[in-house]
Amino acid sequence: MNTNSSNIMALAPNTSNKRETVCIFGTGDFGRALGHKMIQSGYPVVYGSRSTQISNLIPKDAEVLSHAEAAQKAAIIIIAIQRQHYNFLTPLAEILRGKVVVDISNNLKLNQYPESNAEYLAQLLPGAKVVKAFNTVSAWALQSGALDASRQVFVCGDDVEAKQMVMNIVRALGLTPLDQGSLLAAQGIENYPLQLFPMWKFPIFLSLGLTAFFFFYCLALDVIYTYVYEKNNFSFFIAITIPNRICPVMALILLALVYLPGVLAAIIQLYRGTKYRRFPDWLDKWMLCRKQLGLIALAFASLHAVFTLVSPMRAFVRWRTGKGIISQALNNKTEPLDTTNAWLSDSYLALGILGFFFFVLVGITSLPSVSNSVNWREFRFVQSKLGYLTLILCTAHTLVYGGKWFLSPSAYRWYLPNIYMLSLVVPCTVLVVKFVLVFPCVDKPLTQIRQGWERNPKYSE
Amino acid sequence: MNTNSSNIMALAPNTSNKRETVCIFGTGDFGRALGHKMIQSGYPVVYGSRSTQISNLIPKDAEVLSHAEAAQKAAIIIIAIQRQHYNFLTPLAEILRGKVVVDISNNLKLNQYPESNAEYLAQLLPGAKVVKAFNTVSAWALQSGALDASRQVFVCGDDVEAKQMVMNIVRALGLTPLDQGSLLAAQGIENYPLQLFPMWKFPIFLSLGLTAFFFFYCLALDVIYTYVYEKNNFSFFIAITIPNRICPVMALILLALVYLPGVLAAIIQLYRGTKYRRFPDWLDKWMLCRKQLGLIALAFASLHAVFTLVSPMRAFVRWRTGKGIISQALNNKTEPLDTTNAWLSDSYLALGILGFFFFVLVGITSLPSVSNSVNWREFRFVQSKLGYLTLILCTAHTLVYGGKWFLSPSAYRWYLPNIYMLSLVVPCTVLVVKFVLVFPCVDKPLTQIRQGWERNPKYSE
Amino acid sequence: MNTNSSNIMALAPNTSNKRETVCIFGTGDFGRALGHKMIQSGYPVVYGSRSTQISNLIPKDAEVLSHAEAAQKAAIIIIAIQRQHYNFLTPLAEILRGKVVVDISNNLKLNQYPESNAEYLAQLLPGAKVVKAFNTVSAWALQSGALDASRQVFVCGDDVEAKQMVMNIVRALGLTPLDQGSLLAAQGIENYPLQLFPMWKFPIFLSLGLTAFFFFYCLALDVIYTYVYEKNNFSFFIAITIPNRICPVMALILLALVYLPGVLAAIIQLYRGTKYRRFPDWLDKWMLCRKQLGLIALAFASLHAVFTLVSPMRAFVRWRTGKGIISQALNNKTEPLDTTNAWLSDSYLALGILGFFFFVLVGITSLPSVSNSVNWREFRFVQSKLGYLTLILCTAHTLVYGGKWFLSPSAYRWYLPNIYMLSLVVPCTVLVVKFVLVFPCVDKPLTQIRQGWERNPKYSE
Repeated sequence: MNTNSSNIMALAPNTSNKRETVCIFGTGDFGRALGHKMIQSGYPVVYGSRSTQISNLIPKDAEVLSHAEAAQKAAIIIIAIQRQHYNFLTPLAEILRGKVVVDISNNLKLNQYPESNAEYLAQLLPGAKVVKAFNTVSAWALQSGALDASRQVFVCGDDVEAKQMVMNIVRALGLTPLDQGSLLAAQGIENYPLQLFPMWKFPIFLSLGLTAFFFFYCLALDVIYTYVYEKNNFSFFIAITIPNRICPVMALILLALVYLPGVLAAIIQLYRGTKYRRFPDWLDKWMLCRKQLGLIALAFASLHAVFTLVSPMRAFVRWRTGKGIISQALNNKTEPLDTTNAWLSDSYLALGILGFFFFVLVGITSLPSVSNSVNWREFRFVQSKLGYLTLILCTAHTLVYGGKWFLSPSAYRWYLPNIYMLSLVVPCTVLVVKFVLVFPCVDKPLTQIRQGWERNPKYSE
Repeated sequence: MNTNSSNIMALAPNTSNKRETVCIFGTGDFGRALGHKMIQSGYPVVYGSRSTQISNLIPKDAEVLSHAEAAQKAAIIIIAIQRQHYNFLTPLAEILRGKVVVDISNNLKLNQYPESNAEYLAQLLPGAKVVKAFNTVSAWALQSGALDASRQVFVCGDDVEAKQMVMNIVRALGLTPLDQGSLLAAQGIENYPLQLFPMWKFPIFLSLGLTAFFFFYCLALDVIYTYVYEKNNFSFFIAITIPNRICPVMALILLALVYLPGVLAAIIQLYRGTKYRRFPDWLDKWMLCRKQLGLIALAFASLHAVFTLVSPMRAFVRWRTGKGIISQALNNKTEPLDTTNAWLSDSYLALGILGFFFFVLVGITSLPSVSNSVNWREFRFVQSKLGYLTLILCTAHTLVYGGKWFLSPSAYRWYLPNIYMLSLVVPCTVLVVKFVLVFPCVDKPLTQIRQGWERNPKYSE
Repeated sequence: MNTNSSNIMALAPNTSNKRETVCIFGTGDFGRALGHKMIQSGYPVVYGSRSTQISNLIPKDAEVLSHAEAAQKAAIIIIAIQRQHYNFLTPLAEILRGKVVVDISNNLKLNQYPESNAEYLAQLLPGAKVVKAFNTVSAWALQSGALDASRQVFVCGDDVEAKQMVMNIVRALGLTPLDQGSLLAAQGIENYPLQLFPMWKFPIFLSLGLTAFFFFYCLALDVIYTYVYEKNNFSFFIAITIPNRICPVMALILLALVYLPGVLAAIIQLYRGTKYRRFPDWLDKWMLCRKQLGLIALAFASLHAVFTLVSPMRAFVRWRTGKGIISQALNNKTEPLDTTNAWLSDSYLALGILGFFFFVLVGITSLPSVSNSVNWREFRFVQSKLGYLTLILCTAHTLVYGGKWFLSPSAYRWYLPNIYMLSLVVPCTVLVVKFVLVFPCVDKPLTQIRQGWERNPKYSE
């Protein structure tokens, strides 16, 4: 969709005479790719290299000179070499004085060096205006033009004018510059492309662990128990029946885990009588991954919805339905409509649908562009009020669905409870505690504490 | 998802020696929270306070001085006190001359004062460079680090350099500054956090009102009538059957209400022969909430889709299906396939699916990030062309579904029409009028009027 | 959703005394609309016009003067006239020297003139600071306030200060300025509003062509063949049965077409032994529209999901189910559960659900705001790893569904294979070649080539 925007920036090559010359130090893969792209966008490019003989890999229209000569030809020098070779720049410090020097390097590990590459470069070249940029773009993406991913280029630097010059080049290449402030931001910018969903790791491992546990629990109770005691081979339950037991359980538990830390934080604050002491570390981390937990819960809920909706199409369900009808037909009688049963069946379906509806609504507001267009009050309303409504509806859905089995002995195979009973523990706890916290006698001191009041001011740090 | 970006900005504390000192006037809750966060981000913080004895609530590493002393230590002064106490700043006007003074205050009501707090501050301190910022962030969010909501901080001010300094601080705290232009924008920025979905109020109240009306209408016709005249207790219809009658009706009516004002506007323009007279106020307001009406209609349509899809799982439907089959089996005969019925059933399902598909497509383009990446022509194409296609498909879906009942007397219980007949009134009107407006003899003058032509130029204002 | 933001900018008219005067050349439709809006936002507006008699169309509070007089009254002059009349500005060059001149014009065709209108204007007025802006907003949108579409105004210009002044006006009108760099970007900005989904054209025509082909193929085999040889009138298959055969086939083929060019590119690179030669043009173009192909495939997959889920509600399916049950009842016997059949039925449903789930996940990450908040590594992980997982699951879903018919002669009506067999050709090819490419003996040289290694360095250009 935003691929169109590439055309906005696309410049006719015939306007190239207006562009300032750019110098690139280093003729490696990224240096060449960047040079190619810049020449396409109308920039005269001169390479600074140790060996000035023109390699046939270097873009045709580019000049290749020694480092010193090349640097003198341009106001902007892009350093396309690795950090460990930066010290060769020290003799050039005088030539680079006052020039815009662009650090595009990345590291192999998070926080590999004590200071960021760009800050290290700025120390080596005290007279140069160092700008960090382009490190989030890959050589391949530049060359192939397949910039379907993020076109964002983080730019930071202490000199505002130098930053502007670099941002103009970024725009001319069809990318979107994002000003990140001073060079202090370089460390973060260099760490950025090394991450692979860091906030998602804990929620995903937690989900996988719980899913595996519930899978074997269900396998034991639904397939193995049935096979051992009833001699029925229900191994095909592995495909749909068991996933459709695990998904709602996971969705409900994870959704409750989203709201549990908030409830715990309130209890801790009430107990301490102050909000000025840090929460335990695990609680802090838990609170920071609530959004991810919620979205994984939504994924499980969606899978549950689809698994449920396909059930009339399953061979097993069609066989069971047919069997029931045929036995009635053979007995020559029609069972009357059981109104209680109809009420229960319709209620839990309706509760589930409404719960899922609000869940999706809350999920949509966590899309970056939507959450950016609501204010804090609106975001809190959706995430807290609608979130709790979702939790209540989903818990009620589960209670109505399985309520009748709580007292039935056949639900306790091998003396183990059915998993939907396990799934109710966390959400019910959260809802009960939240219900207590909403009482005025508890809510009032909590609100006071959150506004800065302290029970024992001495104990605050 | 964008929580990662916090890491980009996260600065190692060891680089803090480069940060300029920031002064905060006021040691209240927000002043302390902001100070904490700034110290974490490496800014030396000095508090200006009436009582200079160090409270244990104030961050440890911060200095506390008198207002005048504190202000002299820093180039940026953040005013974390309430507007009604601003006049104490008048004696400090000379000290604050040339300094960047940041107004972070909020009001309790929309447009509480004739001028914004920031403009009032600028009047009190004519020599200071006043910048408005940080008012959309809560103390709690700053302290807990739970910035999962909008990280956007609106910044405005008349001095560009002062604004840049404040925006750098905003970025260093892990937030996203948004330049809103001159200090004139402060009023809007101060009103922003007080709103709770202002554009959604009318559409939501309208929907709730209509839903309540149709609920009681259906309750009367489907449950009470059946109970009184047919002695059937269908009270469980409240859970699914009745919601699944209301949802499609609401979706269709609200979708038609999205396109009705455009049609009315065209008629008014044709009648007046000019586009240079304002529409009546109600029409203007109606046109401004079309997007919200459309999204609520989409929510009802989605609920209708899910309510429909679960129907084969309902105890009532399974009982009814079984009864039908058993009665055929007991009569020893199989009914042949009724091709007309198969055609009708498949057609209305297919029309509904296609209508819903295009509805979702139109809904996706109203996501902020998607609508920002299409141009005006593309947006109009989707919202107008695909929107009308959706309306036509959904109206056809309803007509095919209920067409056979229009002439059946049993559909008129208590001489009242079924609600799907009511639901067809608005969409059919819109489609008929739109059909007339598309005729060249009507479309041509309308296009001329919209391009600026006037029938009676004298009457224009 | 982002309509709220209009309120942020909304300025009380009583603050208007601070705004600088703006001059508008031209009293046409857009000039008047812009003037109206500016006066509403508190800007004094003066029109420059050939005839200085005040027309009643011009906003009341605006002054109308000759071009020269009007230009002298303001620092910013907006040129609301068409490019072909720009030469009348030449005599005014001296008066406009040093002023900010805003070009708001659009063309009727893409790249209508060799240079952009703004650059042409800059050539005519060498002393003026030309800024391009406002061309993406329509007069109607300005006047009606119905800015529900993109509020983005692209701004470019060579003078940074002039650009800032124009961007402040853009913000004051409730729009979002987007700095696009120097005036060289004007060509792209002028082309932008003329486009109608240019990247979508090829994928959509391809899909329509394939859909038409498969429709007639299915019509022949399912309706005409059945009518001719079995005397059954299954014409109602056109509504749901045939669409539900075409949709999955289209989804699978288009999804495979997303990954085919990547596989072809790898083969070409391996064959050539270098990555420094351009791919054929058709491959380049194909690679650039992969996102669009994938999203259309997702649309077909979603339609397939819904068409499948409604099947138990279809009159035909209910009749067929009833017939099967009745025949069992009349024969006084109940068929036992066929476990193999249950396994097959559940497996292909589960595979389809999982495939669709991952497909939706990949689709969500292609939303602009989501893809902007992930880094390159994360984007590649989702689009490549999860994308291939989707392709594998969907291919397996089709294989399990139709596997048993491959060897059945009745599946080859008129000696033609069923369309799901056709649909498997492309995905299986892609998966087999990809499987070969993943082998270390093939993967290693490919990785080397992609890192810049060349087999025959001489042949590279």
